[in-house]
Amino acid sequence: MAYSAGIAGAAGFAGIELVHILLSHPGFTLEFAASDTSAGTLLSESYPALIGKTDLKFCTTDELVESEVDVAFLAVPHTAAMELAPKLLKNGTAVIDLSADFRLKNVDTYSAWYGVEHTAQDLLANAAFGLPELFGEDLKKARAAKEAKQDCLVGCAGCYPTATSLAAAPAIRAGLLRHESIVVADAVSGVTGAGKKATQRTHFCFANDDVEAYGVTSHRHTPEIEQILDIQDRLVFTPHLAPMNRGILSTVTMRLTEMSGEKLHDLYVDFYKDCPFVEVLSLGQFPRTASVVGTNNVQIGVAYDERTSSAVCIAAIDNLVKGAAGQAVQCANIVFGLPQTEGLDAIAMPI
Amino acid sequence: MAYSAGIAGAAGFAGIELVHILLSHPGFTLEFAASDTSAGTLLSESYPALIGKTDLKFCTTDELVESEVDVAFLAVPHTAAMELAPKLLKNGTAVIDLSADFRLKNVDTYSAWYGVEHTAQDLLANAAFGLPELFGEDLKKARAAKEAKQDCLVGCAGCYPTATSLAAAPAIRAGLLRHESIVVADAVSGVTGAGKKATQRTHFCFANDDVEAYGVTSHRHTPEIEQILDIQDRLVFTPHLAPMNRGILSTVTMRLTEMSGEKLHDLYVDFYKDCPFVEVLSLGQFPRTASVVGTNNVQIGVAYDERTSSAVCIAAIDNLVKGAAGQAVQCANIVFGLPQTEGLDAIAMPI
Amino acid sequence: MAYSAGIAGAAGFAGIELVHILLSHPGFTLEFAASDTSAGTLLSESYPALIGKTDLKFCTTDELVESEVDVAFLAVPHTAAMELAPKLLKNGTAVIDLSADFRLKNVDTYSAWYGVEHTAQDLLANAAFGLPELFGEDLKKARAAKEAKQDCLVGCAGCYPTATSLAAAPAIRAGLLRHESIVVADAVSGVTGAGKKATQRTHFCFANDDVEAYGVTSHRHTPEIEQILDIQDRLVFTPHLAPMNRGILSTVTMRLTEMSGEKLHDLYVDFYKDCPFVEVLSLGQFPRTASVVGTNNVQIGVAYDERTSSAVCIAAIDNLVKGAAGQAVQCANIVFGLPQTEGLDAIAMPI
Amino acid sequence: MAYSAGIAGAAGFAGIELVHILLSHPGFTLEFAASDTSAGTLLSESYPALIGKTDLKFCTTDELVESEVDVAFLAVPHTAAMELAPKLLKNGTAVIDLSADFRLKNVDTYSAWYGVEHTAQDLLANAAFGLPELFGEDLKKARAAKEAKQDCLVGCAGCYPTATSLAAAPAIRAGLLRHESIVVADAVSGVTGAGKKATQRTHFCFANDDVEAYGVTSHRHTPEIEQILDIQDRLVFTPHLAPMNRGILSTVTMRLTEMSGEKLHDLYVDFYKDCPFVEVLSLGQFPRTASVVGTNNVQIGVAYDERTSSAVCIAAIDNLVKGAAGQAVQCANIVFGLPQTEGLDAIAMPI
Repeated sequence: MAYSAGIAGAAGFAGIELVHILLSHPGFTLEFAASDTSAGTLLSESYPALIGKTDLKFCTTDELVESEVDVAFLAVPHTAAMELAPKLLKNGTAVIDLSADFRLKNVDTYSAWYGVEHTAQDLLANAAFGLPELFGEDLKKARAAKEAKQDCLVGCAGCYPTATSLAAAPAIRAGLLRHESIVVADAVSGVTGAGKKATQRTHFCFANDDVEAYGVTSHRHTPEIEQILDIQDRLVFTPHLAPMNRGILSTVTMRLTEMSGEKLHDLYVDFYKDCPFVEVLSLGQFPRTASVVGTNNVQIGVAYDERTSSAVCIAAIDNLVKGAAGQAVQCANIVFGLPQTEGLDAIAMPI
Repeated sequence: MAYSAGIAGAAGFAGIELVHILLSHPGFTLEFAASDTSAGTLLSESYPALIGKTDLKFCTTDELVESEVDVAFLAVPHTAAMELAPKLLKNGTAVIDLSADFRLKNVDTYSAWYGVEHTAQDLLANAAFGLPELFGEDLKKARAAKEAKQDCLVGCAGCYPTATSLAAAPAIRAGLLRHESIVVADAVSGVTGAGKKATQRTHFCFANDDVEAYGVTSHRHTPEIEQILDIQDRLVFTPHLAPMNRGILSTVTMRLTEMSGEKLHDLYVDFYKDCPFVEVLSLGQFPRTASVVGTNNVQIGVAYDERTSSAVCIAAIDNLVKGAAGQAVQCANIVFGLPQTEGLDAIAMPI
Repeated sequence: MAYSAGIAGAAGFAGIELVHILLSHPGFTLEFAASDTSAGTLLSESYPALIGKTDLKFCTTDELVESEVDVAFLAVPHTAAMELAPKLLKNGTAVIDLSADFRLKNVDTYSAWYGVEHTAQDLLANAAFGLPELFGEDLKKARAAKEAKQDCLVGCAGCYPTATSLAAAPAIRAGLLRHESIVVADAVSGVTGAGKKATQRTHFCFANDDVEAYGVTSHRHTPEIEQILDIQDRLVFTPHLAPMNRGILSTVTMRLTEMSGEKLHDLYVDFYKDCPFVEVLSLGQFPRTASVVGTNNVQIGVAYDERTSSAVCIAAIDNLVKGAAGQAVQCANIVFGLPQTEGLDAIAMPI
Repeated sequence: MAYSAGIAGAAGFAGIELVHILLSHPGFTLEFAASDTSAGTLLSESYPALIGKTDLKFCTTDELVESEVDVAFLAVPHTAAMELAPKLLKNGTAVIDLSADFRLKNVDTYSAWYGVEHTAQDLLANAAFGLPELFGEDLKKARAAKEAKQDCLVGCAGCYPTATSLAAAPAIRAGLLRHESIVVADAVSGVTGAGKKATQRTHFCFANDDVEAYGVTSHRHTPEIEQILDIQDRLVFTPHLAPMNRGILSTVTMRLTEMSGEKLHDLYVDFYKDCPFVEVLSLGQFPRTASVVGTNNVQIGVAYDERTSSAVCIAAIDNLVKGAAGQAVQCANIVFGLPQTEGLDAIAMPI
């Protein structure tokens, strides 16, 4: 029998992608899709791709909180999640949070980058970090808490941190990063990364035929990536927007101690050998965002430049799937004892 | 147990979309993916979305012919299909043809529009027309032939004919088309419709930021649509290319005898009530190609203009799925006695 | 010496394109760019393409009205123009209106399609229709009024009406349209046609990878095209949006009395022989929107289909230039006695 | 009186952009547009944007060589330029080369990266480096040579080197780059950067909705950038393709000695104060490629990150204009004693 599931913030881009995944997921039944601004209207009215696929209407967030569903996915802005999570946990609902509220372990870092105080600090210590390829132990503990009927809370990694950390982690965890050197991550995202809100930046005519950087030296995913990789104050992260809907390509440049292309490649292949969603490409091959769009897959390519003793490691993900909804479902699968890949086996359109 | 399947022309756009669908289809097992130019190489080398999803290599067309698979899908150019089909049928393989070779019932029409003689005329009479929503009886006969271990051949409708005919058929079959009036179909297609071959027309920098018509008054799908709708010499069909990968929107304008918007809408809803892939939208709502991309779905919107006594009926499909690979699999499902929707239940990405 | 010019609605898409053109126009000096919501800010702050090209700031509409500039271009919504025009004319300013307020000669038609009463009916009779290729006499009269220091008001044609009428007029004015037949115009526009306002429709992620129709049987440009072509209640006009910034392609299908492709082509070449902005392409060639983007040019291709006795005439324009700002400047050139092409000689980027 | 001009490789993307610029240039008259594969056909046949704008036909390269035009622009592949240049110079024609043949001063570096021997080494020493903002003295010497009726040869900077070097040079020339640190340049280009040849990479359906890196650690522009910036073996350069026609955004990250955002910004403003094509944006503002497309302009934004002691300097150019044809014309202007900006004053479309 399937577990019952709900979504807060279901009308946003990450929220509706959760709907998309859960409608075909054999292990969860989507029962509540909350959006206070759209409550009472059909999901398919806002997103006509769903016409004929679901008769579900948006409910209120309060209805979701009261629903006592087995699991709730929070696709809401930061601060909203730390308000909602305690209420849901109290009702016995496992919480998979896609916001930034339960990612940063240091509340001062949270305050410094998000400009608000953290109001659910007691939950932080036990929140699992939702990036299964790098924090498997965390999720095992969350699984154990779930089985023990204790609070079960996962704070999923952000989109850029997922792509960037998966590109960099094997080299950094192997201790190869050169002493005192910095890590440079230039990432390019599709426009869904800027959210559903209609603004000048997301207007078709401004975003089309254009590439630009934003949040230069100030993007909030910076401290999250530094925490994941344990490289405090050593990351320069510059995100960019490109004219496509979905996809993140993160290009990470790192100065390494002695290395070769083959050794680096072997290291990456070995690191991800048990990760069903990660493909390390052949040496000399580099990922395309188009090859992972619509899926929870990650494709990684690596190169080593002897001239500069630098590795260039590049990862491609779909920001709304592996960078948001898919990763959240992957975490939920683990927490509920389902196969990690359940409901996440879509193959990207080849063309 | 699943039926064994093969594809001729597997490296092209329709061919690789067949691969994409069949890899997740519970009723068919893809065993042979033929492409003489790519034979011996991995499918995933040409289409990196398939990395980690299949280890299949392209085989030769001859290997496919000799394979005696249960079903072969022909995603080859016209003339190649009428050469291949007899050989495959002789080996007991059911043939689902996506080319133009078994669509036109009149061989003179075929010669006039395609500029070559038809070389497999004996097979034409018994070829089922592969557009299940409009030619269900044809496919039932093909199913019967299959069960009787006779030749089983389906000639699937083309991409523009599928969209255009589904938009127009309910009104025309109801006898509403005004005496001696013409039907105007202006259709817009994504660039996959121009095929995989790299040409100036398909170069990104020529196709991007551009809309243009082509094949004006001369496109080969014209006689096919006229045959489907039984409107000999009454169709003006103008296809256009738009800067997107997939999708066809066909806007059909027809002068009707007395009608109203509500009556027209009721007629369409009733006509498609048993068609699982077709959604007739609410009156006043019109389809987006984006809402059907990646799926076998069809969305149709209709309006009636009293000022000019004209209906405007608009259909959206994915040209590579309902317009090619998906429709072929839908036909194969029917012929092999599987549920029509098997392996075709993808929901389009909502955003 | 150059004439002084102002723009109302300068922060919108048509308004800023007027800025773009006027900044390089030798005959007009842009002195006032009004936008009440942006007043006081630099034009280049909203549109960074203008950084280093102008230090102009947006002013208020009142400042423009009081400015007594020689010419004011009104790139404001309908109803705003009929409020502004009388005030400007009173101050001796010639008015080139880009809104719908001075296009429709019949005020009942205006009320029926725009849902408001016309409040400047006295000005309508003398308003020139701003589509120089088809209404040259009108503009000569406006030129004479200007010289006589009388009210000088031009109501420029809309974007779809410009493309559609230029495609259809030569055949229709020659009396070739078959008795009682209708005209079908399916047009595709870039997203700038939907305006600057950030909405769900103009959000990059909804407009990208999508083609859809809108305003089916109800678009307000319908009566305007019928007036231009004198085909009351005989036009079915269906506009579509495609994923590009600029450009309109209008495909017009008309049943004609006896005709041939060559005769039709000759007719079009002759009709436009004195029009510097119109190119009738060789027989068999059809226009691309990309070939006219950024220019005031029009490219037209024609075909005649003997099977259905129908002409297919297709025109491409840049909706913001020939469909708005460029045409307005072309009209102003005529009214002020400048060469029609002054300041409008940009050549489209070849790629 | 205007100087006579010719183009070798006129049918390619850089070549046709040269045509586009020269057709409106008051100082040069385009007389010969050579393309051996297209010789004898109208330019407007290949590029319909030119219909009605020029009656020129492509000529052969031999005809260009014999033409004795005042200046020839070489928009040909490397190796072809070093064959052509001596012949043209011998005929008294000044040569502005857009290929890689006269950029690298060290012939061993040329051989190592381009895989061929340099066959015109005698010309290298006196070839001016065509990047006026950084090598003004070089171009003054070329101007003097021209006036003295000696060989006049300019080897223009490549597209990525132009964007990347303009972003990095002010900091590096000021000696701010931290000892032994590397420079990381991640650049994103539109697809015109991949050239006119129709390949799988340039097929619309592969390039659309996709971002990917290429030439990782091996792109031939690497040694050119290192030469310009005098940072031998210290550059990691990773180019990417994004789904747009034109534009390069180069994001350069450099560890600096003590610095602040304001000081860095002041330095850049001062460095470029006499450069008419370069705009250093306000502190906190970063460039969009869309804001320079179609122009010879450069927009640069800078930030300093105290956490990592790093500068992030970002430049946007149009790869076909400032990165190719426009820069070549800018160099020709200088060499022929015309104002640097002549014929290059286009303002980018604001939207």
